Amino acid sequence: MKTKNSKSAAPFAYEGLDRVIHERARLSVLTSLITHPAGLSFVELKKLCALTDGNLARHLQVLEGDGMIRATKEEDAGRAQTTVRVTASGRKRYLEYLTILEQIVRDAASVAHEHDESQLLRKLSPLST
Amino acid sequence: MKTKNSKSAAPFAYEGLDRVIHERARLSVLTSLITHPAGLSFVELKKLCALTDGNLARHLQVLEGDGMIRATKEEDAGRAQTTVRVTASGRKRYLEYLTILEQIVRDAASVAHEHDESQLLRKLSPLST
Repeated sequence: MKTKNSKSAAPFAYEGLDRVIHERARLSVLTSLITHPAGLSFVELKKLCALTDGNLARHLQVLEGDGMIRATKEEDAGRAQTTVRVTASGRKRYLEYLTILEQIVRDAASVAHEHDESQLLRKLSPLST
Repeated sequence: MKTKNSKSAAPFAYEGLDRVIHERARLSVLTSLITHPAGLSFVELKKLCALTDGNLARHLQVLEGDGMIRATKEEDAGRAQTTVRVTASGRKRYLEYLTILEQIVRDAASVAHEHDESQLLRKLSPLST
């Protein structure tokens, strides 16, 4: 019976690809926040991710409801401003998700490398040159 | 006027993240096919991607309608069998998508590396050690 190890049974299933994170706009927002641990304002996030007010608000709601980010109203030079930060659990989930993205890149990179079509992939696989 | 270069204006927008490919089941199917250029049978794909018959059939239809894969009926020892292959244009689009995945991994890796939370990421960034 080899059914216990679903990873080796279905090596391309990528079951860890968290659907909350995988959606493109949320992946943009979370990557922005991960790389800016001090937090970002609503306006900064909008610009970094090229999202509309409505879209960003909707995705922040999903991420906050899921405990991955926290939005706080703060005073900045007398003006109220929303600052968004990734939470510890959000960070942990994002990093788990990231290991799956890395796995996909590795799975595909070996083949792409053979065909010499991607400069980037070559840099990612220094041991195979 | 700096609006021409949307990449630098919105560095986390990841606009090249092709929605047809980004969907998890289709990403599984395409990565399987990219790594098996000789093609895979319906049954092999089902197993590699842990998909049901209905789900796989539906996603193959989307990918074939979009010109990314081709499914052909072939005779194998007298039995008809469907073989699925990625097309040249499907391969090109997948590799373009892959460069965006790599960009996300790089964007996030620099930070994750600092916090020493991912062994995989360290291997991916040999120059930063």
